[in-house]
Amino acid sequence: MHYQAIARILGVLLMLFSLTLLPSIIVSVIYADGQVVPFRNAMALLFALGLLIWFPTRNYRSELRVRDGFLITVLFWVLLGISGSAPFYFNAAIDMSFTDSVFESVSGLTTTGATVLTNIDELPESVRWYRQQLQWFGGMGIIVLAVAILPMLGVGGMQLYRAETPGPVKDNKLTPRITETAKALWYIYLAMTVVCAVAYYFAGMNVFDAIGHSFATIAIGGFSTHDASIGYFDNPVIELICIFFMFASSINFALHFFAWRERSIRIYLRDAEFKFYFKLLLAVSLITIAVLIWTDTYSFGKGVIHGLFQVVSIATTTGFGVADFAHWPLILPFLLFVVAFVGGCAGSTAGGMKVMRVLLVYKQGAREIKRLVHPSAVFRVKLGKRPVSDRILEAVWGFIAVYMLSFIVMQMILLATGLDLVTAWSAVGAAINNLGPGLGDVAFHYGDINAVAKWTLCFGMLLGRLEVFTLLILFTPAFWRR
Amino acid sequence: MHYQAIARILGVLLMLFSLTLLPSIIVSVIYADGQVVPFRNAMALLFALGLLIWFPTRNYRSELRVRDGFLITVLFWVLLGISGSAPFYFNAAIDMSFTDSVFESVSGLTTTGATVLTNIDELPESVRWYRQQLQWFGGMGIIVLAVAILPMLGVGGMQLYRAETPGPVKDNKLTPRITETAKALWYIYLAMTVVCAVAYYFAGMNVFDAIGHSFATIAIGGFSTHDASIGYFDNPVIELICIFFMFASSINFALHFFAWRERSIRIYLRDAEFKFYFKLLLAVSLITIAVLIWTDTYSFGKGVIHGLFQVVSIATTTGFGVADFAHWPLILPFLLFVVAFVGGCAGSTAGGMKVMRVLLVYKQGAREIKRLVHPSAVFRVKLGKRPVSDRILEAVWGFIAVYMLSFIVMQMILLATGLDLVTAWSAVGAAINNLGPGLGDVAFHYGDINAVAKWTLCFGMLLGRLEVFTLLILFTPAFWRR
Ligand SMILES: [K+]
Ligand SMILES: [K+]
Repeated sequence: MHYQAIARILGVLLMLFSLTLLPSIIVSVIYADGQVVPFRNAMALLFALGLLIWFPTRNYRSELRVRDGFLITVLFWVLLGISGSAPFYFNAAIDMSFTDSVFESVSGLTTTGATVLTNIDELPESVRWYRQQLQWFGGMGIIVLAVAILPMLGVGGMQLYRAETPGPVKDNKLTPRITETAKALWYIYLAMTVVCAVAYYFAGMNVFDAIGHSFATIAIGGFSTHDASIGYFDNPVIELICIFFMFASSINFALHFFAWRERSIRIYLRDAEFKFYFKLLLAVSLITIAVLIWTDTYSFGKGVIHGLFQVVSIATTTGFGVADFAHWPLILPFLLFVVAFVGGCAGSTAGGMKVMRVLLVYKQGAREIKRLVHPSAVFRVKLGKRPVSDRILEAVWGFIAVYMLSFIVMQMILLATGLDLVTAWSAVGAAINNLGPGLGDVAFHYGDINAVAKWTLCFGMLLGRLEVFTLLILFTPAFWRR
Repeated sequence: MHYQAIARILGVLLMLFSLTLLPSIIVSVIYADGQVVPFRNAMALLFALGLLIWFPTRNYRSELRVRDGFLITVLFWVLLGISGSAPFYFNAAIDMSFTDSVFESVSGLTTTGATVLTNIDELPESVRWYRQQLQWFGGMGIIVLAVAILPMLGVGGMQLYRAETPGPVKDNKLTPRITETAKALWYIYLAMTVVCAVAYYFAGMNVFDAIGHSFATIAIGGFSTHDASIGYFDNPVIELICIFFMFASSINFALHFFAWRERSIRIYLRDAEFKFYFKLLLAVSLITIAVLIWTDTYSFGKGVIHGLFQVVSIATTTGFGVADFAHWPLILPFLLFVVAFVGGCAGSTAGGMKVMRVLLVYKQGAREIKRLVHPSAVFRVKLGKRPVSDRILEAVWGFIAVYMLSFIVMQMILLATGLDLVTAWSAVGAAINNLGPGLGDVAFHYGDINAVAKWTLCFGMLLGRLEVFTLLILFTPAFWRR
């Protein structure tokens, strides 16, 4: 392991991150909400810490290997998760414990969007801005993770994407190519954010809310500047804009890249993952809307828009709300939570297990049926016209098994701390899928549960975001040997 | 498909099954409980029906193929499930609906042991006997299924056992070998039942209870002749005997066969599945006992014996009770239900996904970790010293995915009928794993839930018992296409 080189990178990262507190200071000045000092102090502290790590290691530059890649990726997220808590913890106006500060920060950066805060409408503008912005920067990190790091590390079958990313990374080294790939996709991310914000503004949000919500939408984060989330605006046009951008952000960004470059929408229609995802969302939306209208939960019009919004919000793992979804007929929250496990497409800012993996599992299940009927025939699992190697299928199965096992173990920990089954089940599901809101005691916020549960959920959010293996591998002796 | 040959076999089967009502008539005469007429009527009806099916097809004898095997296996269980309900439905003394009668019968034959009956202590002796006996004959069917039919059909990786059964069945035809294999294991099954009954008797049960409970123990059924189940006897020796025989019955019967033939206990210690299973039970028992004592749920002595009993009862999927396990600290019912998904060993009368499959998944998960650390090395999944083929691993993964998907879909159906999350979750888990008792509204019996839920659970019990694929494959167009 190249510890010094890793430390150098993390030091630079921390210094860069400290600069991201500047916009919050500017917001504080504009709105005169009196929060300049805590943000300035947090910024100074983080910059100083970064400098302290960087300075002694500044001359270490070595070619990083796959193993360093795992360590640096995990440390990146853990370090930022903790550092991001400083502005919360230092802020006298909101009085948050260390546990709560880290929870809110990790939840923001992993774009989970689970909050411990209440009365968000009355928080200082700079703090409300900072939460939204955490998600947006988190989303940038996820893009790098999804299109460059995970395919290279080969986590959970993501090597499938090695050849497909705009700048292909085929060798074993962390090359500068990552920066190129990431840059191209960051432009798309930025462009989507700008268009989304402008759309929100013209639909009726003020500038502050429009930017803040576009941050949380494109990052599939789900934080809002209001307790009532998107429901606060009570505006069907805003809801439709939100539905469109949540969906767009949960699609593989590489598709956006190619569609843009070739100026053709057919790119999407040729993609097996996109087609499966679209059909799945359509089917779940129809079921949800039918149940809502059938059970007289809403009138027809409201049922259609609230149903569609909530399905897209939960299925993409955004977690915005427009309705009291936790009190819908029980089958709907359950169904939507199950769909959240599927999550969005690989290579997007969405959470969950990713549509691609579920699609591969589905195809393999169908192959098993065929094999039972025709035991001696040979069937291959294909994506589009390309056969998928057994190695990738095995990695996908391994991923899903470890994902589910982690889900069950964390659920047991939460039960052991005294939470009820519905709360524990939904909270862990909302964490590992980077979804956000849960059911039961965590339907509205996570402020009232115990500290052990909160730390477990922080771990769960990181586990989900790092696609389980990246984090768990650090706990195996094999990783540290030799 | 050789429909006439299938009909002939099913006709013979039905006639044979009708004869199994004879012991209940004898019990009715001995105890003078006045139930001779309903049992006699049911027996006459079933025999006549069997004759009606058999007579026109009696001359059709063709070599059955794999596809016929699926159909005949499913029809066997569905037909017996419905036929077994006749003595309940015809019995004026217990006044059961058709739904309840079929539920009780399917639950008995699949050795699930979920009951819709209350006040079991006050039922006529013949009915109490009949329920226990249903489980015992169900267990005989399961042995044939596990050691002969499923390995040959190749369901969910069971082809792994093709070469290991005493009379190896290697070709594509339903040969007379099945009968030989089954016979050898039936002797073991019978011997275990006799020893268990004698042990129960000397520990203090009366003859009726001793035989009845040995039926339900060796079949891993869980029906009891008392509402309070094994707890009725309040006798630690009986509990220990029960623990021993539940465990013994949940082990691959082929191991018993070889251990008997070679007069050596080392057969068990060489078996990878047995070792893994034993360690798993040990770990879960220790956790359970520790939590029970730590939380002051019981004193030390009671905590040890009740903890051990309940772990073995749920983990083997027997479902006997000695304590109000549904009201233990919530983590324990949850943990035990998760372990019930693992189930017993392949080739036993236990339910669940089977230890072998979970072991293979575990080994493959470990391989994924190794592959991430050493991307270019080659690792093989081995059982003992024998490498396991990719084909079998894929079949196991397919099995688990379809098992879990069925679990989730049935849970949604139960939620849609209005049951709460804990009830739906535990009821479907108890059905598909052939476990028996659930939590919430079905902690004590299944009498109060709605009919749609009961039929769904009947389907779930058959699904679990037929290892999902055997039943589901009949719903695919590919199966019926020539
Ligand atoms: K989210
Ligand atoms: K059972």
